[in-house]
Amino acid sequence: MNTLSTSAPVSARVLVFDIFGTVVDWHGSIVRELTARHPQVDANAFALAWRAGYQPAMEAVRSGGRGFVKLDALHREILDGLLPRFGLSHLPEAERADLNRVWHRLEAWPDSVAGLTRLKTRFTIASLSNGNIGLLTNMAKRAGLPWDCVLSAEVFRAYKPDPRTYLGVAEVFDVAPAEVMLVAAHQDDLAAARACGLQTAYIERPLEFGAGQPKDVSADPANTWHARDLLHLADQLGC
Amino acid sequence: MNTLSTSAPVSARVLVFDIFGTVVDWHGSIVRELTARHPQVDANAFALAWRAGYQPAMEAVRSGGRGFVKLDALHREILDGLLPRFGLSHLPEAERADLNRVWHRLEAWPDSVAGLTRLKTRFTIASLSNGNIGLLTNMAKRAGLPWDCVLSAEVFRAYKPDPRTYLGVAEVFDVAPAEVMLVAAHQDDLAAARACGLQTAYIERPLEFGAGQPKDVSADPANTWHARDLLHLADQLGC
Repeated sequence: MNTLSTSAPVSARVLVFDIFGTVVDWHGSIVRELTARHPQVDANAFALAWRAGYQPAMEAVRSGGRGFVKLDALHREILDGLLPRFGLSHLPEAERADLNRVWHRLEAWPDSVAGLTRLKTRFTIASLSNGNIGLLTNMAKRAGLPWDCVLSAEVFRAYKPDPRTYLGVAEVFDVAPAEVMLVAAHQDDLAAARACGLQTAYIERPLEFGAGQPKDVSADPANTWHARDLLHLADQLGC
Repeated sequence: MNTLSTSAPVSARVLVFDIFGTVVDWHGSIVRELTARHPQVDANAFALAWRAGYQPAMEAVRSGGRGFVKLDALHREILDGLLPRFGLSHLPEAERADLNRVWHRLEAWPDSVAGLTRLKTRFTIASLSNGNIGLLTNMAKRAGLPWDCVLSAEVFRAYKPDPRTYLGVAEVFDVAPAEVMLVAAHQDDLAAARACGLQTAYIERPLEFGAGQPKDVSADPANTWHARDLLHLADQLGC
């Protein structure tokens, strides 16, 4: 075993991206689609409530109490629970199924495609999302996200922040964890990646939860990089 | 089989592609690289012998006698076994590791990028290869293969022709097996996919094993389509 170590900073070779909030605007996309379909509903409250069910639903899988279930199925369970609260209990099956696929149709932030395209010239770029592979592929095809590879909790059968997801990326590409950088708009995701030895880049997305719910985007010096958006990250990384 | 009609009962939505031999020229690529590195070696025999170790190595995994191992590791075991036969026992570790990655550097057939680019306008296109995710991603980045998604035996923890690979594609994209079409230059791969309910397209690759070993490329009427190359398949599918 090689016991030598180096104090020199390691160059990242693979950039993996959180998706919901970091690359795409889930709140704005859901608000726009719900407003168009059901103008009487408080779309902002609906979007926030749907997203609020996200962590508890995954926690049942993370805790081992439930086998791995795709995020599409968890999104649907949360949706079915929400509809009565918003006066939409009457929605038939086909409309529920279609509404649930709004997560496949989320729109990219305005800088995402251009930023990823620049970053791709120098790094291997992949998603690393709790979204399932089909969701991420449909989203990328529609929004023009130029991934080299779609990685997902579904590949690793574990939801972030399970270390199997972050370390799994290093294994997939046969590189050291320090050669992988997670790019995300969420400090808890980044902290978990850092604990696995990954480099980290924080992306400010002050409007992730909508204009009515501004987010704290202050810098954490523990991150390797801090950028306003993906174009600013590309500037910093010399792409 | 259909060459110019549209009588297939269900429209395919997802096309998945075998890679080695179907999309990239493993024989020619290995011969070229080995000839440049070790001109004294019979590169044709070397390439054929390396590939001949492929099915037996995977069979140990398929039979359940061995847990899932990435193809990179199987390729390396076969390579280490071959080197003495070709007078290359002296190759040091770094050269062996680099030579093993020739599978990440395989070159596309001349029609592949243009054909896939056309097919991508109408279908979701993904790899479905026994190659590992990192191998397929590095290959695609280098050769410009425009996948919507990189799928691999590594995702399903099973090697083709295990039904979990073909049926896994339908599950990933939440479609019926008949909405998935496997595109391959190997009748056994296609037959296994068909047994799982997939549509199939055979691609002639008469020089897969090199000019000295021409291949039988006769049509099997059990396939949905039969095409000379990926441009011809795009013609037939109206892309």
